[in-house]
Amino acid sequence: MGRMNRREMLKLSSVGSLGAIASNDIGAAPIQTPHSSHPPVPQWEVFELTLGGPAAGNPFTEVSLSANFSQGYRTVRIDGFYDGSGRYKLRFMPDAQGEWKYVTESSAAELAGKAGSFSCIAPHPGVHGPVRVRNGHHFGYADGTPFFPFGTTCYAWVHQSERLQEQTLETLRTAPFNKIRMCVFPKSYEYNHNEPLYYPFERSATGVNDFTRPNPEFFAHIEQRIGDLRAMGIEADLILFHPYDRWGYAEMPPEADERYLRYVLARMSAYRNIWWSMANEYDLMKAKTTADFDKFFQIVQEFDPVGHLRSIHYSHYMYDYARPWVTHASLQNSMFDHAPEWLTAWRKPICFDEVQYEGNLNRRWGNLSGPEMARRFWLGVIQGCYVTHGETYLDADSGFNETATPVIWWSHGGTLHGTSPARIGFLRNLVEKTVAVSGPQRAGLESQANPYYLNAAALDQSGKKAEEILYYFDLHQPIFYEFPLPAGSFTAELIDPWKMKAMPLQGTFSGTAKVKLSGKPFQAIRFKRSS
Amino acid sequence: MGRMNRREMLKLSSVGSLGAIASNDIGAAPIQTPHSSHPPVPQWEVFELTLGGPAAGNPFTEVSLSANFSQGYRTVRIDGFYDGSGRYKLRFMPDAQGEWKYVTESSAAELAGKAGSFSCIAPHPGVHGPVRVRNGHHFGYADGTPFFPFGTTCYAWVHQSERLQEQTLETLRTAPFNKIRMCVFPKSYEYNHNEPLYYPFERSATGVNDFTRPNPEFFAHIEQRIGDLRAMGIEADLILFHPYDRWGYAEMPPEADERYLRYVLARMSAYRNIWWSMANEYDLMKAKTTADFDKFFQIVQEFDPVGHLRSIHYSHYMYDYARPWVTHASLQNSMFDHAPEWLTAWRKPICFDEVQYEGNLNRRWGNLSGPEMARRFWLGVIQGCYVTHGETYLDADSGFNETATPVIWWSHGGTLHGTSPARIGFLRNLVEKTVAVSGPQRAGLESQANPYYLNAAALDQSGKKAEEILYYFDLHQPIFYEFPLPAGSFTAELIDPWKMKAMPLQGTFSGTAKVKLSGKPFQAIRFKRSS
Repeated sequence: MGRMNRREMLKLSSVGSLGAIASNDIGAAPIQTPHSSHPPVPQWEVFELTLGGPAAGNPFTEVSLSANFSQGYRTVRIDGFYDGSGRYKLRFMPDAQGEWKYVTESSAAELAGKAGSFSCIAPHPGVHGPVRVRNGHHFGYADGTPFFPFGTTCYAWVHQSERLQEQTLETLRTAPFNKIRMCVFPKSYEYNHNEPLYYPFERSATGVNDFTRPNPEFFAHIEQRIGDLRAMGIEADLILFHPYDRWGYAEMPPEADERYLRYVLARMSAYRNIWWSMANEYDLMKAKTTADFDKFFQIVQEFDPVGHLRSIHYSHYMYDYARPWVTHASLQNSMFDHAPEWLTAWRKPICFDEVQYEGNLNRRWGNLSGPEMARRFWLGVIQGCYVTHGETYLDADSGFNETATPVIWWSHGGTLHGTSPARIGFLRNLVEKTVAVSGPQRAGLESQANPYYLNAAALDQSGKKAEEILYYFDLHQPIFYEFPLPAGSFTAELIDPWKMKAMPLQGTFSGTAKVKLSGKPFQAIRFKRSS
Repeated sequence: MGRMNRREMLKLSSVGSLGAIASNDIGAAPIQTPHSSHPPVPQWEVFELTLGGPAAGNPFTEVSLSANFSQGYRTVRIDGFYDGSGRYKLRFMPDAQGEWKYVTESSAAELAGKAGSFSCIAPHPGVHGPVRVRNGHHFGYADGTPFFPFGTTCYAWVHQSERLQEQTLETLRTAPFNKIRMCVFPKSYEYNHNEPLYYPFERSATGVNDFTRPNPEFFAHIEQRIGDLRAMGIEADLILFHPYDRWGYAEMPPEADERYLRYVLARMSAYRNIWWSMANEYDLMKAKTTADFDKFFQIVQEFDPVGHLRSIHYSHYMYDYARPWVTHASLQNSMFDHAPEWLTAWRKPICFDEVQYEGNLNRRWGNLSGPEMARRFWLGVIQGCYVTHGETYLDADSGFNETATPVIWWSHGGTLHGTSPARIGFLRNLVEKTVAVSGPQRAGLESQANPYYLNAAALDQSGKKAEEILYYFDLHQPIFYEFPLPAGSFTAELIDPWKMKAMPLQGTFSGTAKVKLSGKPFQAIRFKRSS
């Protein structure tokens, strides 16, 4: 594609106080003020305007900058940000095609009143916009295309060596995952002792943070990685706070938290593949209260002009996902059988974002077998929910060695070693072949069903009638079973989720379809409408 | 042993109106009134007195009979019952050695004022009395010997052919189970279409019940089977009501329910191996309310002189096991991780009496794999609770044949075909090697533990300090783990619950014991105190 990465772009637009420079992801084109006419920007890419301004004092706290982007009767307010070296930026993700105009406002005369326009043109092929909630309990891109999250977890991958980051991206290129949970801040925890490549704030040689001065290099680096993910169609479920910290980022004063959020929002909201996760294990952050996280949600909701998805992840005490600023639940548990009541109570999609990890770690959350991790994906999907993968093999690269510093996918990235990813990919493929998962249709499809058993996800192609019905047997090993089908006629195939095979059955099925089965557990069956 | 069975005993004592006849399980010895001196009765066996009385009218409802059995300052009131053909009986299980005296009371002159005495002598070897609650959450026999229930389920076995009943007993003789859930009433349900050998009440040729006239032959037959179980050391968890009925027993009028209970209590309370289960799936009995079952509990509590264990089993809506007349919980679920909060709330032992069954049936509750059934026993035991087995293989005997009438252990008895019983026996053996299971010791042993993981049952031999500690890894496959041990020194063995093997580890362990493990799931480790 010849696309520049974010780092190169930043270099191109590094023009000090010369004037306004605009760039988008395709290229940078310097244009003069007062009214600048910019090259066209494809829908859902980033229009970036770089302006020269004051470098004296503390521009992060002393200079305000924003812009109003307007199209017809619509105006979108965008916060700008200071990027260091007298350079200010505004980033805008146009979500509608046609002509857009902007004009800046600033406390600094040389940044105020800059005006310009550009044309938003058709999106690049395969680009569908940011992910939204769709049909209440599900997700879809802005253009209506369904999106089925099949996520993974690499909390601190952007804080590892560049070599390891490149390896992680290489792994993700062929892995079955389309979402990744990752932290803004570096991580300090068992098996996580390295210093990050960059610090998020200016930091003295003795480790004193200046929370009033974000480090543009730190943020530009994360943005480069979010851009790398965007190019692969992977959503970045970006964790804004977390408790595993030895640098002070988990205990910043409230005004520093708020400035940090505003800075991140100004810099990153224009990336269409961002999801905001207020925190990982918010309840383990001892310096904060639940009210602090409520406030963070409200700040994100107000100052993210794109309106990206918003959630929060807990350890012991579930956040109240019914609160209006939450777009979806992000659970740490594997209580899939509770999903129907939660879906009813919250009326929001549910991501089981931490169901423990495949691996062999010496921790309860990090040593599931591959079959169990794959099973949990099935259990989530069959409830009309979404599940996130993680992997924690301790001896994957070097054999078990107590003194080694292991590279563990869950935090560092690198390569995958487990047996579940291939099966997760098989399930993702099954699900994506349909247009929409409408969730469990127990009332209609299996009125006597217990949620523990043989749950059916009706895959609803038309929005009107079930086109496909997927049953998963889980632990159960019936030798035959009577499947209640909706009106119409169906073909069927037996599915072995572990062997990743589907075996078509002869004939068609209707009414209460009695099917002879293998008498083996962990099997599935899919019915497809034939009339 | 030359022991007579109940049927033979009944024949011996069938003496019409000749006078009082006493028998115990060892033999029958006719003795004359007014004061009869009877042969000695071993502790916890049955002293049975047979009296001749009125046969006219309806003796079941028109004649009252009871006796006071006294020893020192203690008097125990016993209800007698009409056994048909002008024959009345009183059964008494002496729970203390020494001299016992009795005197009868009756509305019929010829039954009143009969007096006698017998000596209660040392129990037969291996007899420990009825099972009681022990140490709050556990069970033990009356003499203090711990009892660890490892139950199975054969709901309607006593209503099958005599040949099949004998086969069931033969199976139980070598099976690992020491408790069996079984119904008084016959069962009408899928795969249960046969008529019972006997009906519990007089019944006309057109199927009209006379609930005022119990059928002594029906009850004598069940008593024979309870006696057979007693001889094998198996507790009969006797279900007094259940919803699966086509004869009318689930919808008797209240006065018939109460008379039935009184009749059962008078006949059977003297069997030391009885547990009373008010119902199976009480909430599915549409003709009854929860208040009816409260009343049944109260009747049983008042008129069972032995004070056998009392519980009730539900389908959807859990009974309130905190109620004072409940001795232990009898759950239909497999939510083992809730056990700690339930134990705290109820302060009673918990039997997970229906965790679904090993088999391949076309029903959600009847097609667990053998490994899953065995796993559920471990999960229950490790929480300090007890689990009940059931088996539902449809094709076990004859191959899957839609027209066959299968013999399924869960209801009919017969033979066992599954892979879980051997593993359940292995676990029972592990548990019984110790003197007491004190339940999960999370507070002391693994303060940071999540109840889902690596739960430890501290097997408390002395009542003072943990002598043995058993960890089960369930789904988890750590490659090493640090086990927090109490003060002292321990040896350890790795246990493979499926292969039923134990491998001793070299050396001793103390403090936080780091142990290299197999990296395979479903393993266990046991620490034994060495100092």
